[in-house]
Amino acid sequence: MNPRIPILKLYNCLLISIQWELDDQTALQFQEDLLNKIHETGANGVVIDLTSVDVIDSFIAKVIGDVISMSRLMGAKVVLTGIQPAVAITLIELGIHLDNVQTALDLEKGLERLQQELGE
Amino acid sequence: MNPRIPILKLYNCLLISIQWELDDQTALQFQEDLLNKIHETGANGVVIDLTSVDVIDSFIAKVIGDVISMSRLMGAKVVLTGIQPAVAITLIELGIHLDNVQTALDLEKGLERLQQELGE
Repeated sequence: MNPRIPILKLYNCLLISIQWELDDQTALQFQEDLLNKIHETGANGVVIDLTSVDVIDSFIAKVIGDVISMSRLMGAKVVLTGIQPAVAITLIELGIHLDNVQTALDLEKGLERLQQELGE
Repeated sequence: MNPRIPILKLYNCLLISIQWELDDQTALQFQEDLLNKIHETGANGVVIDLTSVDVIDSFIAKVIGDVISMSRLMGAKVVLTGIQPAVAITLIELGIHLDNVQTALDLEKGLERLQQELGE
């Protein structure tokens, strides 16, 4: 069984909630799945919710940062939501600032922000 | 690694998209997780999307039917969306009619239907 991360399509947005610790293989599979889904659905917004993630390492952080840049190249705006204190600390300590990544407190706020920016 | 099914909370609803074939253990874990999440969040609507499910067996169908009844007991309305032709055929052939379960074509329509019924 291959535990892929489900990607939900809601209107013009894709919603992803990461609710368990990612291993490297699942993270790379997620990267590929998300880009394919953007291509396939023509979604122009993506919300990645990390509410349930309490540990992150540099590889996973890089994969997430990369997939955000890749999605942007494909024309989709990405908002990262629900980053926990411990995850924020780890990211900054690892030197990963995700400076040009939009964030929001939770899934609802992330989705609202996207809808605003996409002008709907 | 325990591949739990992610449950997303959006406003007063919970969204679940089942995107791989469920084994019995995962299905039972999902049942427990969903009921806990309803209790924890006070959500009064649930959309279970089966768009990506192309095979279903009698045990999984029973678990899904049960969790819908259980959620209803707890005060949450459930809409089942995206049932594929093959799954619909299997369910009826297995004698599982899910008569009192609301259905909709896809996640968007399921969510709209819930919002209507919940009067928002």
